[in-house]
Order: sequence, then C-alpha cells, then structure tokens
Amino acid sequence: MTVAMLMKNTIHAATKVFDKRLLPSWNIRYLPLKLLNPVPSDIEIAKKQKPKDIDVLAEEIGLLPEEVNLYGKKKAKVSLDVLNRLKNVDDSKYVVVTGITPTPLGEGKSTTTIGLAQALGSQLNKNVFACVRQPSQGPTFGIKGGAAGGGYSQVIPMDEFNLHLTGDIHAITAANNLLAAAVDARIFHESTQKDEALYSRLVPQKKGIREFSTIQIRRLEKLGINERDPDKLSPEDRTRFSRLNIDPDLITWQRVMDTNDRFLRKITIGQSPTEKGRERVAQFDISVASEVMAVLALTTSISDMRERLGHMVVATSTTGEPVTADDIGVTGALTVLMRDAIQPNLMQTLEGTPVFVHAGPFANIAHGNSSILADMIALKLAGKFGPDGFVVTEAGFGADIGMEKFFNIKCRRSGLRPHAVVLVATIRAIKMHGGGPTVVAGKPLAKEYSEENLELLEAGFSNPRKQIENAGYFGVPVVFALNRFANDTDSEVETALRLARESGAIDAVCASHWSHGGAGAVDLARSVIKAAESKSNFNFLYPLELGIYEKIETIAKKIYGADGIELLPAAQAKVELYTKQGFGNLPICMAKTHLSLSHQPELKGSPRGFVLPIRDIRVSAGAGFLYPLVGTMSTMPGLPTRPCFYDIDIDPHTLDVTGLF
Amino acid sequence: MTVAMLMKNTIHAATKVFDKRLLPSWNIRYLPLKLLNPVPSDIEIAKKQKPKDIDVLAEEIGLLPEEVNLYGKKKAKVSLDVLNRLKNVDDSKYVVVTGITPTPLGEGKSTTTIGLAQALGSQLNKNVFACVRQPSQGPTFGIKGGAAGGGYSQVIPMDEFNLHLTGDIHAITAANNLLAAAVDARIFHESTQKDEALYSRLVPQKKGIREFSTIQIRRLEKLGINERDPDKLSPEDRTRFSRLNIDPDLITWQRVMDTNDRFLRKITIGQSPTEKGRERVAQFDISVASEVMAVLALTTSISDMRERLGHMVVATSTTGEPVTADDIGVTGALTVLMRDAIQPNLMQTLEGTPVFVHAGPFANIAHGNSSILADMIALKLAGKFGPDGFVVTEAGFGADIGMEKFFNIKCRRSGLRPHAVVLVATIRAIKMHGGGPTVVAGKPLAKEYSEENLELLEAGFSNPRKQIENAGYFGVPVVFALNRFANDTDSEVETALRLARESGAIDAVCASHWSHGGAGAVDLARSVIKAAESKSNFNFLYPLELGIYEKIETIAKKIYGADGIELLPAAQAKVELYTKQGFGNLPICMAKTHLSLSHQPELKGSPRGFVLPIRDIRVSAGAGFLYPLVGTMSTMPGLPTRPCFYDIDIDPHTLDVTGLF
Repeated sequence: MTVAMLMKNTIHAATKVFDKRLLPSWNIRYLPLKLLNPVPSDIEIAKKQKPKDIDVLAEEIGLLPEEVNLYGKKKAKVSLDVLNRLKNVDDSKYVVVTGITPTPLGEGKSTTTIGLAQALGSQLNKNVFACVRQPSQGPTFGIKGGAAGGGYSQVIPMDEFNLHLTGDIHAITAANNLLAAAVDARIFHESTQKDEALYSRLVPQKKGIREFSTIQIRRLEKLGINERDPDKLSPEDRTRFSRLNIDPDLITWQRVMDTNDRFLRKITIGQSPTEKGRERVAQFDISVASEVMAVLALTTSISDMRERLGHMVVATSTTGEPVTADDIGVTGALTVLMRDAIQPNLMQTLEGTPVFVHAGPFANIAHGNSSILADMIALKLAGKFGPDGFVVTEAGFGADIGMEKFFNIKCRRSGLRPHAVVLVATIRAIKMHGGGPTVVAGKPLAKEYSEENLELLEAGFSNPRKQIENAGYFGVPVVFALNRFANDTDSEVETALRLARESGAIDAVCASHWSHGGAGAVDLARSVIKAAESKSNFNFLYPLELGIYEKIETIAKKIYGADGIELLPAAQAKVELYTKQGFGNLPICMAKTHLSLSHQPELKGSPRGFVLPIRDIRVSAGAGFLYPLVGTMSTMPGLPTRPCFYDIDIDPHTLDVTGLF
Repeated sequence: MTVAMLMKNTIHAATKVFDKRLLPSWNIRYLPLKLLNPVPSDIEIAKKQKPKDIDVLAEEIGLLPEEVNLYGKKKAKVSLDVLNRLKNVDDSKYVVVTGITPTPLGEGKSTTTIGLAQALGSQLNKNVFACVRQPSQGPTFGIKGGAAGGGYSQVIPMDEFNLHLTGDIHAITAANNLLAAAVDARIFHESTQKDEALYSRLVPQKKGIREFSTIQIRRLEKLGINERDPDKLSPEDRTRFSRLNIDPDLITWQRVMDTNDRFLRKITIGQSPTEKGRERVAQFDISVASEVMAVLALTTSISDMRERLGHMVVATSTTGEPVTADDIGVTGALTVLMRDAIQPNLMQTLEGTPVFVHAGPFANIAHGNSSILADMIALKLAGKFGPDGFVVTEAGFGADIGMEKFFNIKCRRSGLRPHAVVLVATIRAIKMHGGGPTVVAGKPLAKEYSEENLELLEAGFSNPRKQIENAGYFGVPVVFALNRFANDTDSEVETALRLARESGAIDAVCASHWSHGGAGAVDLARSVIKAAESKSNFNFLYPLELGIYEKIETIAKKIYGADGIELLPAAQAKVELYTKQGFGNLPICMAKTHLSLSHQPELKGSPRGFVLPIRDIRVSAGAGFLYPLVGTMSTMPGLPTRPCFYDIDIDPHTLDVTGLF
C-alpha cells in the first residue's frame, strides 16, 4: 500500500465518521392514521390525511436547503449534488418489490411497496425510502383513475401525484417531439436543396465568422473528417456532412402524447401543400413509451444523459447507417429540455415517510422500473447512519419481466446490488393460475374467488413457485408477501405461506397494509429485515458478451420455462444487423405479455413445452437495450365509452379534486 | 343611505387603513446592473446577474408565504387568494405597452415593457409590476431562441423563462388533447353501439346504484330533460342524451403541440385497423393557438374558467347544433388539469423588480395578451400603498391588433381601465413605412436604415400617426416611446419625437433601456407617470349589441382605415349561424397580419382606399370571442434547415444553458 493510498483511505474513513457525527439519525415525524372499516375510497383516505410540508420532510431526512427545489408545498425536486456530498457514505439496504404473474386487476405491488415502507418507518423506526414510478396521465383520465398505491398505503397528495407531478413527462414529450419534428424537417430540407445551399445553411457565416457548432464537430468526428474550417472541407465531405439521407420508410422515431388517443395509432403526416407531397405513415405512442423516458430511468448523471440522448437512433439512412439524435444536431437541446426532469421528485406516504417518484418507462417495450438516480440518492440518504436504513423500490409487471429487467438491465447499469426480493401474491391470483375462471376488469368475480378453494390454490402455486425459483437465479433471498383480501380464509393463507416456504422463499408472511397501513405490514417488514441481513450471492442471468440469440434464449428457457426460442425472419435479420452495427453487447429487454410466463396470456400457472416466437427485435441505443417483440404491443391506449373523466371535477373553493380513485 | 350601507362603507374604509398600516411600502432590494459596451448577448447578460431567491422577492412585495408556491428557487406561482385578501385595496395605475406596425424583426415592445418597469422601480422607486406573456417553446428551438426582453431589460433567469416555466403550456396541451381524443373516441363509440348499449355504458350501475354524474346532469339540463332517475328516462330521451351525433366533417377542435412540427399541419388520423375505417383529415396547431390558452388568459376565477372550458365548441352535430366540452363530459377534468396553471408565475427583471409571466395566447386567431388574472393581482399588490404604484402590461403585435384587442376584449372582460398607452417605435420601422427597402429576418439591413434619412422618416410617420389616432378612439393618453438604436441620428430622433407630439401623443420620449437598463428609460417613466395622472376618458370602440357585421366594419374603418369590409360567402353564412346560435353578442378578435394596417403585409404606412375581405368567421365560445379570418393564418410554424437547437447546450457541471439568445 502506498502512502498516497493510505492517506486517501484515512480521509475516506474520517469523512464517514464526520458525516455520522454531523448528521443525527432521521428525526422524522410520522403521521398517525385513523383507520376506518370498511376502508373508504383511495381519494377519501388521501384527502383526510394532511401531509407535512415537503421542506419539513426534506429537512427531517437530512437534505440541505440548497439541494431541495420546491414545486408547490408538497412536492420537491432533489438535486443530484446529494450524491457528491454523500459519496463517502455507505448505501442502505436495497429491497425490490415484484409480484407473481397477476390478474388483469393487479395484485397490489405498488400498495405493498408503500405499505412496507410505512411499516419499516412508522412501526420499526428505520430510515426508509420508497421509490416508485410516475404514472402516465393518459390512463388516469381513461380507465385507471390513479396509481399512488391504495387504501392506507398511498403516496400523497394523490391528485398531485397523478396530475402533472413536476412536469417530467411533459418534458419528455417536448424532447421526444422536438426530435421527431427535426427528423421530418431535415428530410424536407435535404430534399429541396442542392448540396452547396444545404451546407451553407447548416454552417452559415454569423457576424463574419463561419464555424462548426459543438454538435456539428461531433458529426465530423463520427465521419472521420479532421478538417475544422468550414471553408476548407472538400466537396465530398461537405456532402457527407450535410446529407443524412434518411430513408423515410425506415424512420423508427415516433411522436408521443401523454393522452389516450386511439385515433393517433396510425396516421399519415405531411399532407399540407407546404410539405410538397412528402407525406408518410407515422404514429403516436403514449409518452411513457418514448425512449427518452427509458433514458431518464437508466441514466446516472447529466453528462451520461446527454451522451445517451445523443446516441438514440431515429432512423436508418438509405445506405443502412443508423441516424442518431447527434446527427440531427439536437442533443444539447434535448438535454436542456430534460435538465430539471433528471432530479427525482420527493413526496411522502400517508404516514409521512419519504418517497421518490421518478420516471415511469413503459413496462413493455421498455424496462418498467423507476429511475436509477432516485434509488441512488435514496440509498445515500437512508444509508448514511449505518446499515439499518432501507430503500424499497418497485419493479413493474410480474417477476418474470419486471424483476428480470430490474436485475439484468437496471442493476447492471447502476452497479447497485439488491439485498432482498419481496414477491407479492394474492390468493385470487394464485387460484386463477390453478384453473380459476377468467378474471376480467369491470366484471364481477366468480365465486371461486370469494369461497375457500384449496385445490385451486395448490394447483395455482406453480406460478409463485416458478417466480421464487427465478429470483433464485440471481442469488437474492425472496420474501413471499401475501397481500390479504377480506374473503381469504385462514386455511388458504396458511397453505399459501407453507407452499411458499417449501418453494424456497426465505420467509413467507401475510400482510394487510391496504386496510391497516404500516401496522398491517410489520411482520413483512421484520422478515425483510432478516432476509436483507442473510447472505446473498448476486449474479446476472447472462453476460453481455453472449450473442443476441443466446441472451434471449437464456431468458426464455430459464425465466419463462420455454423449450427454446424461434426467431422469425425480421428478428433474424435484426440479429445480424445489430451485431454488425455494434449493438450486440446490449442487454435484452423482453416485450412480452405480463399475464403469463409464456407469450400467450391465456396460459396460466407455469406453462411448459412451448417455444417462444420472436417476431422482431428493435434497439434503444440511447437507453441501452435491445427489445425483442413477442407478439404485438399496443403503445397507445384508447378511451372507453365512459372514460373516468366523467367523474373528475374540482371544488372551486377548496381546489380539492374529486373523482380520482 | 341605510344604516347597513353606512356600516359596510365604514368597514371598507377601516380595512383599507388597516392594510396600509399593516403592510409598509415595498421594501425592495434592487439589483445593480454592470453595464458593458458593446452590449453582450442576452444570455450573457442574464447569466451574469444573480437573481434574488423568489421567496425573498415575494416577501418584499407583500405576499404571504401561504400565497406563494415555489417552483424551484427563482419562480413561484401566486395564489388567487391574494385577490380576496386585498379586495378592499385600490388598484395601482395601469399602463399598456403597444407598438407601431413593426418590421419582421420586432421593435422592442417586450424590452420596453421590462425597461419601463425597471425605470419606474429601480430609478423612481415606485411599486411596479411588469406583466408579460409566456412564450411558446416551439419557436425557441426553431428560429427565435428566447423572448424574455433583451439587452439590459430582461426577465431572469431567461432559460427558465423560455423552457417549461412552471408547465402552464404543457397543462394546456394536455387539456386540449384530452378533449380532442375524447371527441374522436366518442364518435367511434357512438358509431359502433346501439342506443341502449350506449346508454348503459354511459350511465352504468356501480355497486348497485345507477345515477347521472354532475356533468351528465348539465347535459340533461341543456336538453330540457327533467327526469333524474336513469332508469326512468324515455327511450327518446335516452337517445337524445347519449348521441351527440357529431358530424366528423364539422369538427373544429384540433390537437396541439408546443413544437414547430410542420409535418402535422395536415394529417389523416384513425388509420389503424382498430378504428375500423373511421379515418379523417385533421391537423395539429401550436399549443398557444389552443382555445384553452385563450380561456386561461381571459378568465377571472377558477369557477369562471370551468364555465368557459365547458362552453368551448368542438364540433357541429349532424343537425346543426354546437357540441361543447360539456356535452363530451370532460369539463371537470379539463379544469383539474388547469388547476395550477391558473396561478400567475412570479419572476423578476434584471434589476430585481417583480414580473408576472402568465398565458401567451396566439396573437392571431386569439387576442395575444397576457392574463387578466396576472394584471388583477399585480394591480392589487402594486396598488395597496396608494396611487403611486404601476402595472405595466404588454399587448402583442402592433397597436391596430394588440391594443385594439386589449381594450375591446381584455379590458371589457376584466372591467379594468388603463391610464396610459405607451406606443413603441423605432426609427428603422418608421423609415420602412416611408418606403424603405424590405426588411427580412436573417438578412443584412439596407443602408437606408444605418444612414440618416429624414425624408423616409417623415413619410413613414403616417403609421405612428394612425396608431396614435387609434389609441385616441379609446380615450386613453398616449406616450410615444422611441426605442433608440446606435445608428439613429439626433436629427432623426428629434424629428420623430416632434412628429409624435404633433400627431396627438401627450408626450414623446427617447429611451435606451436596451443598452442602459432602467436608467435608460427614466424619461419615459416620468412621462408615463404624468400621462397616467392626466385625465382619461375610456370607452370601447363598439358596443357588444352591435351586429357582427357592424362590429367588424367599425374596427376595419376606424382602426385600419379601410373603406369598408366584404364578407365572402363562408363568412356571410357564419354571421347568420352565430347570430342564430346566440354568439352574436361576443366581441370581435380580428385574425389579420400584423405587418400592415391593412390585410396586405406589403402595404406599409397608413394605407387607404382598401376594402377588407373577411374569408371566414370562427367562434371561440369558451374564450368568448368571434374571430374573423382575413387571409390565411398558419397555426403551426416549421423548423428551418439549421434550427437554433444546433447552438443550445448545457454545461453538465454548472447546469448553465448556452445558445439561447
């Protein structure tokens, strides 16, 4: 050990001690719950609880005033500077909440995430952060009505959580659509101008000086052009520089909107005479499906975000080259539009513990997890007083998708290592896997779900068993959390818990946080604490160096239980293309239904003997993954005949919102 | 006088005294300017000045902490509760800044608004508020680069001013597009369902109870149906209730986006197989052209906003009835989406005086003025210490459009009465009106504009003269403000000021706030103070009861100097339709070029001998005006070959934005 290293270590250790001495453990005021039975509607519960002012909470958890940007009284953005200030502090424990394959009604993953955090905080007095996704505003006005947890385990104020928040999704929409507009405008201008005119407009003389802008120099570098004086570029290089030669039929970048607008699923654009006949077929996706959202969720700093935004591929040129945001010249502008969005949003649970709400990538063509940055900051804030703190983060969808992507994509990127997995299940969903009648949203449940039926339960446990096994592949201990409903009998509950333990869960507990808040999840919290202290041996499911085919095959066989995969011709071609283009080392983000371990939603339990068909493969080069398409994914929801906006209104005097649920 | 009245008056007087006693005059800290010559770029100046934290400014101007919602450190939303708290306080003086017919480069109206406010504040120590519009983000990334004033008269931080602000335009986009999606979805669902199925879906049984929602009761009232039990409605009434029978060819509600996306000017939507062939031609407008923006700018309270949003007409039914947002059932949801946007945004000038940035309706098909609510709150805050305070608000475009709409639409709605008009002019623009060569953005100016030329100046004064006359129609004194450029000679300046006085301006002064900040506009400020103390005799140009034709004719003849108007067939039909539909009493919002007093941009000076052609007339029933179309208006700008985003970037360490100008 050199003297320099020795000194560095000493300083490191001293800084740690210093931080601990300076900042006492969280001095947090919990908000007491007044539990009612029957449990009122979510918005009624949320409205009855008066949240703390968010600057008060920020101070309680050790944030400095200059690190906190208030957005109204109950929300704040938190500066990434925290990471630098606390860089010598050890992270807290890191727990991921996932679920078994759900019914279309959902089994309470978000609610459990919040309930568990409430229990660890208000009941067991741990420093604890919950990290959740921001919901898309589209479904809020369509059929969903809100997504802040439920019952006595919610994020509040729930209206602010569900509406605009601090504008992050709006920023994503703006960035995404600026890029889209720039792509079409560029094609138009290239097609209406000769080489020299185009070059002159792209590199104009300004006040007597002609020079390349920074982003244009990046393009020169990419093209291997060393000349930096615009007047000295050769005619060939001027053409190479100016012409992106985007093939209009190979544009992959779509416009987005955070509204459920089914009529924009397929459209023809450019039909005004001003576009001189350059019309083409295009589409709008819901904003959370934008790659910009995935970039936000997976970035680790503002420089990293700029790099990733610049690498996003928008189209292929007529000569087969990927065309990026960098080539369009818009990277800096996109980063500027996302400057505030990169800061996680601080809110609170019903019991006054801190929550980060940050990023909500589409859980299908993207990875469906909240942001790395929120987790990183939370781990420092909850961790700085010793090994006792916890961060509870949620992975979207069932464990075969959400958890798998959490580990293989999010953790791989962040370098963070989880200490425990919480697998949420309901008796209802397990019975469905055992052959219970189909569950359809909006229709009454069959009697099998309200009466004791141990046979269905035992048969359906194949699904939880497989999901527990799946967590095992990553070497992380699993706590099975049964989200109990009123109709569940004691025998059913005991059976489920016993089967879970037999399947390899380190513990299995029943929780009632929906009806009792944190107090209903104390057993779960204790199990999680124990699990997080047990030995874990984290590893990825596959190394990045494996071929694209092999990576997909590994996921399909090990996680889904498939016999193998079949690449359809489009997918086969993409394997070759992406390998050639240098995208072969990216992780895989499967776009598969969450309603079955297989690709067929109607196959429940733990299906066997199937081959997973891969229809196509796409690349999110900025976010950093390949996403194989298994079946057809709708990226733009619609509005039903009677959208829930019929019930949404505001009291003009109190400004209270009604009709969210 | 009754005893009750007497008591009320006594309390009123007592409250006034109380307010004055409790709240001393603004104790504001002005920010000193370090003037450089030559004047650096706008963003360089803005970056060099450290703004006060906005909560500090809020306190300085007498806002209470509970009335202030911070959005980061330098922006805040101000609660409408201020109006109630200060309802017994007299308003300050009210000054509107407008301009002569400009060149395409603009003549410094915004800059003068800010400069005048800086002068009244930092130089003359008056309580003064500037009220300006929020710029659209589209042009910021296209050709404009920013719109926060210029030189040493700016709103800061200018990057936050130009990007997102507090999300108001994003909220407008969300509200506008939810309504648009709901219109098409409704047509789709009506066309695919039989009467009874449709009714059952619109009025479903929930937990055993079937009832109409509040918004549905509004529809019943509109239809004159008295029955409130859904099960007892007659089959005919069920059909009338359920079927809006929107004619897809008569939809007037368009989608919007705050991006310059020329390829969305004309599109075909609904081409996905899921829409079963119901495709139709549609378009996207820039968000600021949304009627929701005009509603925001013209509303006076949250209840009023809900009422207006509900009255917005989206289409005509197959039987010729207007279909409104109320009929679609979405009024409450739109109001909820706009709940925060209704609060004005507090920022500051380079010299630390307060600015409200709020609403920015398209200055063409809408009225182009900032919000009534911002002016109302500012008038109370600046006015509460006596008659000395000032609110300086800006009217978009030249005086023939912006000022005329300010008076006839905005002041008529608000009931506020301005004390003085500031008419901004430049030697450059006056010379152009006298026959100077065409001025084109991005091209070098002809020598006529850099050399003394009194002949052009005298000839061109016909335009300012007419605009001064126009202000006279409203009975408000006019101060002529010459925004001086470096090349303007003393003789030119003196000639312009002399001609302005001869034309009826109460005073005419030269100002150099662009290069000197508030100190450069002290003379202007003194003139404005004097003008505001002089007698004014405000009246509208026309009474609302006048016929639609006559109202348009009055504006055309008196303000534009036309011989008369000619209604083309479409416009003629609309006069009849709107009169029949009860929209005849709305004020008129002319959609005319701002580059000429006439409808032909190339006609400079004060054209005579022309007849104004009215191509069509449209209604903004929610915002509350009819807008006659004079010529074709583009409601979606495009991106040039080299948009200014090429220069926009961020320093990843300081988070400073570069490239805005």
